[in-house]
Amino acid sequence: MHHHVFWLEIVFILLAFIAMWFAVSNFSSVKRIFIGRPLRSKELHAQHTKLFWIIALPILSADLYSSVAYGPEAGMTELVGLGASAKWFILPITISTILLLAILITSYIMGVIAYPSGGGAYAIAKDNFSNPLPSLIASSSLLIDYILTVAVSVSAAVEAVSSAYPAVGPYETIVAIVCVCLLVIINLRGVAESAKIFAWPTFLFMACMLLLIVVGLTNEASYGFVQPATPPIGQFPPGVTVLLLLKAFSSACSALTGIETISNAVPVFREPQQKSAIKTYIALGVVTAITLMGFAYHLYVQGITPDIHNTMLSQLAGVYYGHGPMYQILIWSTFIVLILAANSTFTGFSQLAAIVATDGFLPRALTNRGDRLGYSNGIIVLAGLAIVLIVAFRAHTNALIPLYAIGVFLSFTVAQLGLLRRWKRVRGPKWGIKFVINLVGFIITALVAVIFAVTKFIDGAWLVLIVLPIIVFLSMMIKRHYNQVAQQLKIDPAETRPGAHRVITIVLVSGVHRVVSNTLSFAKSLGTELVAVHVGFDHEDIEKMEQKWEEWGNPCRLVVLRSSYRSILEPISRFIQALEKWEGEEPGHIHIVVPQFIPKKWWQNILHNQSALLLRAWFFWNKDVVITTVPYHLQK
Amino acid sequence: MHHHVFWLEIVFILLAFIAMWFAVSNFSSVKRIFIGRPLRSKELHAQHTKLFWIIALPILSADLYSSVAYGPEAGMTELVGLGASAKWFILPITISTILLLAILITSYIMGVIAYPSGGGAYAIAKDNFSNPLPSLIASSSLLIDYILTVAVSVSAAVEAVSSAYPAVGPYETIVAIVCVCLLVIINLRGVAESAKIFAWPTFLFMACMLLLIVVGLTNEASYGFVQPATPPIGQFPPGVTVLLLLKAFSSACSALTGIETISNAVPVFREPQQKSAIKTYIALGVVTAITLMGFAYHLYVQGITPDIHNTMLSQLAGVYYGHGPMYQILIWSTFIVLILAANSTFTGFSQLAAIVATDGFLPRALTNRGDRLGYSNGIIVLAGLAIVLIVAFRAHTNALIPLYAIGVFLSFTVAQLGLLRRWKRVRGPKWGIKFVINLVGFIITALVAVIFAVTKFIDGAWLVLIVLPIIVFLSMMIKRHYNQVAQQLKIDPAETRPGAHRVITIVLVSGVHRVVSNTLSFAKSLGTELVAVHVGFDHEDIEKMEQKWEEWGNPCRLVVLRSSYRSILEPISRFIQALEKWEGEEPGHIHIVVPQFIPKKWWQNILHNQSALLLRAWFFWNKDVVITTVPYHLQK
Repeated sequence: MHHHVFWLEIVFILLAFIAMWFAVSNFSSVKRIFIGRPLRSKELHAQHTKLFWIIALPILSADLYSSVAYGPEAGMTELVGLGASAKWFILPITISTILLLAILITSYIMGVIAYPSGGGAYAIAKDNFSNPLPSLIASSSLLIDYILTVAVSVSAAVEAVSSAYPAVGPYETIVAIVCVCLLVIINLRGVAESAKIFAWPTFLFMACMLLLIVVGLTNEASYGFVQPATPPIGQFPPGVTVLLLLKAFSSACSALTGIETISNAVPVFREPQQKSAIKTYIALGVVTAITLMGFAYHLYVQGITPDIHNTMLSQLAGVYYGHGPMYQILIWSTFIVLILAANSTFTGFSQLAAIVATDGFLPRALTNRGDRLGYSNGIIVLAGLAIVLIVAFRAHTNALIPLYAIGVFLSFTVAQLGLLRRWKRVRGPKWGIKFVINLVGFIITALVAVIFAVTKFIDGAWLVLIVLPIIVFLSMMIKRHYNQVAQQLKIDPAETRPGAHRVITIVLVSGVHRVVSNTLSFAKSLGTELVAVHVGFDHEDIEKMEQKWEEWGNPCRLVVLRSSYRSILEPISRFIQALEKWEGEEPGHIHIVVPQFIPKKWWQNILHNQSALLLRAWFFWNKDVVITTVPYHLQK
Repeated sequence: MHHHVFWLEIVFILLAFIAMWFAVSNFSSVKRIFIGRPLRSKELHAQHTKLFWIIALPILSADLYSSVAYGPEAGMTELVGLGASAKWFILPITISTILLLAILITSYIMGVIAYPSGGGAYAIAKDNFSNPLPSLIASSSLLIDYILTVAVSVSAAVEAVSSAYPAVGPYETIVAIVCVCLLVIINLRGVAESAKIFAWPTFLFMACMLLLIVVGLTNEASYGFVQPATPPIGQFPPGVTVLLLLKAFSSACSALTGIETISNAVPVFREPQQKSAIKTYIALGVVTAITLMGFAYHLYVQGITPDIHNTMLSQLAGVYYGHGPMYQILIWSTFIVLILAANSTFTGFSQLAAIVATDGFLPRALTNRGDRLGYSNGIIVLAGLAIVLIVAFRAHTNALIPLYAIGVFLSFTVAQLGLLRRWKRVRGPKWGIKFVINLVGFIITALVAVIFAVTKFIDGAWLVLIVLPIIVFLSMMIKRHYNQVAQQLKIDPAETRPGAHRVITIVLVSGVHRVVSNTLSFAKSLGTELVAVHVGFDHEDIEKMEQKWEEWGNPCRLVVLRSSYRSILEPISRFIQALEKWEGEEPGHIHIVVPQFIPKKWWQNILHNQSALLLRAWFFWNKDVVITTVPYHLQK
């Protein structure tokens, strides 16, 4: 089995990269099939790619709402080591989580009010701190958490399916990788079309979860609120420590990631954008709170215990529905909504990365929009890193949880601090209330971030605490590099003007044949000094070449260089050095012309020594010479 | 554990490729450390890279001799399913193997006499058949078997070590890959230096094996030739079939691979080359026969049974020596000699591939000699394919055995047939005897090849029987391609002479800055028609560019193209099409000049859109245009 799985993985990773390559390569008909017709740049601001809030709700909230599928389970997993009598702690922990959710949503609505153009924590921090450090901490920790969201959500989705179909168990990693690849293709199609595909399954999942809670209440109305399986309440079994409860709390808080997605994506809402975003936030908060509480409560009443092969949601649904059609609908809608959570993260990650890259703190390639107006490079980077995490943790949600959510709370904290500074600076109507809201938010999120870092440090949070400063440092270095380049490239158009120089053209000739003839024709058409250079490996070789050149009527001056080490690079390199010295101080260009014949089929290249390409690459990086390639396309 | 191993493998495969890249890249100081100073081409025929026969023996025979470590075990593995009473069949099987060895060595000596310049089966077939098919069958089947030799030998080497140290067990695949990588580095250093490193361990292994046989005889002299563990002799347990015995025989014959290495490598011997090669053949045959017989006999007497975690050699040595120093010396010399077997194959494979490639049946790159005069590309191809096999079969020797040896016997058969034709054609002194020797050889090897194909078909031989014709077919296609190319490139020097044409130079400008200025200077220095082309994405962009160009004093004519789809490729492509039409039938070149700034550090490239490179690549493959890259090297 092991064998088998290993190979499948390799194959799928390769397929994934091939698919991605197709997706981003130009002029490809395969691409048209998967990605759709290219969109004009001006369609970017057209109404039809913008989202009505009721449609935006499922797309942008899938990340937050779907976490109910694994958040309570993550919390219960920490408690269950103490036995059944510790299970009731899930109730106060869930209540605390919901309170935290309320505080966060309120704080984030303040963010939307203050910054309607989106950007979330990063935009807020950037606006309120002159030093780039806070904003980089916010953006980097969010970007890390987005990657984790994809890994965690897809893993949880696959675990939901393998709960219903244990046969999927050994293939979890592969299935998860395939899901990520499908998400890449869907996201390269662009935001708005994604919406139309994805809105309904999330509504279905919400309906399923709410129905599950209603069915649970009906069940309890018939069989009592304390059932045979219900664990005792109010006991303090030996081993309960504050640290352990805090750890369970921080694991349960993995249900709160994804709140920032909406505030980052305000520009994708249809007008009025701010109002729509706030409406979405409130609706989402209410539904999430009800679901979390109801779900956790029924888990407690039915005495469900975490099982690595069967999620708690699947167990609870099994109690009420058996394995009939309702169970199947719930499992598959859980699967789909968790995949959509990952999908919403693709939008969030690529937009945030593009914003940060526009400011020069990340590689500029992240700002490139693809054919369908999505940020293609961001989408692919996210997918690649998420796949690495999925493979490294073999698609086990609970192994990934300790790394998770710490980034989100760090960025929450920075955002709150930024808003505090803003209210103090801008003032405006009711600024006192807003200040107090964000002050509470700041204290709570900072506290939660510290709790996360401390309680989950050994289990994996240390990794995030190492990677985060590295990313921040790299961002600073990137910015510095861009500044330096801009400085070097700047010219005064009135002063620096292009003028003609002396150019010495060197044509590399391997013999007397059609490709060389074609190349020499080109070189002779330029009005520059011309020398043909041939590298010979032994005496005979050299003599033969000189003779052939003679027969050819000496098309131009020929210099034959001798190579003792079978390298053609070295003698040419020495020849150029000599030319440079001889040229002296006078500005000018050394111009190397390389003949290259191009086979009809790309695979035929393997049959020809790619010395022309290697030469090009080497000179390009090592010498200050202009390089021209004259192609000769073979007919068959 | 599984987790762990998976990652380590990925890391090692990556390291392997990095190491190989370093090994072949030019002008690298790292390379100097691993590979040594480059050798001049004329050193190729210098005496000091040629081998004295006593030194050539261990290097070129390691392949054949080392197989004693797994050949008898492979045979016994087939028999042991029938119980202890079938074990005695290993004795007649080993005797048959030795007879076959004698026939093969005699036939091969005929080959050396007829063809002192080396090339083995391929050279013989090529010389005696006008149709290239037989020689291609010979070379392809040998090349396949060389790859299998590396995989089998390295796997067996690692199994020897993990017999002594069971802790190595789970890491066998990784250790095997590391060994192959070390072999690549050693082989890129070249043949002669390898000799000095490698001669002594093989002698040590031979001494160890002979000593083991002597110790065994002493043991039997004291404790009797029939000991309590000795299985009964002469019984026919139920289930013994001719097919099963033939299968055991063909598995045991895996001990005979590697005979052709010497005849392929005649040119690496010191003069007199033929005599040295024949001496080596005879000495090797005698030692191998004694070892095989003695080893198999003691295995029988001590009643050793195959064990996946402990090789039979290790078990036998354990019986005589315990796990003391003699046991350790034997295990480690087995390990080293099996690695050397793989090493000798590197020489054989790369030389044969180079010979076939020189004839145009394999990619020409295989004829390139590296800095140290070894055929670098052949070495790397062999290593890559062997690593694939090792990973696919998880470094299990017995899983690889069914694929093995069939190729060798196919090539043997072809070679014998070739020699038969030669003796008939050339005649010469004592041609009758030589003819009879090779006739016997031909019949026997053809028979053995058929036995192999039939008995091992289901277990893996089918794979070889599919791959072989594919390689032969590809070889024919390669030859056809080279012929076609040569035809197309041929010109009559008196008729076709390079002359000047019309050239239109297009400079791609992204804005007004130093890199563009530098590029325009170059373009203006050529005496060609000049147009600057800018691609704008919206109206503002275009207007701004036109204004800047004006301010810059209109260095040349500017054409601004509008792109609606954020692609710069598409509008430029359309522009070129228009130019081509407008140019009409007149011969000429369209010449695109691309500015490219080159960061000081290679990794900084990730921070810049590589549009220049992508443009180059696209035009290169799709359009018949000359492309010039004008580099601008950044200072920091």
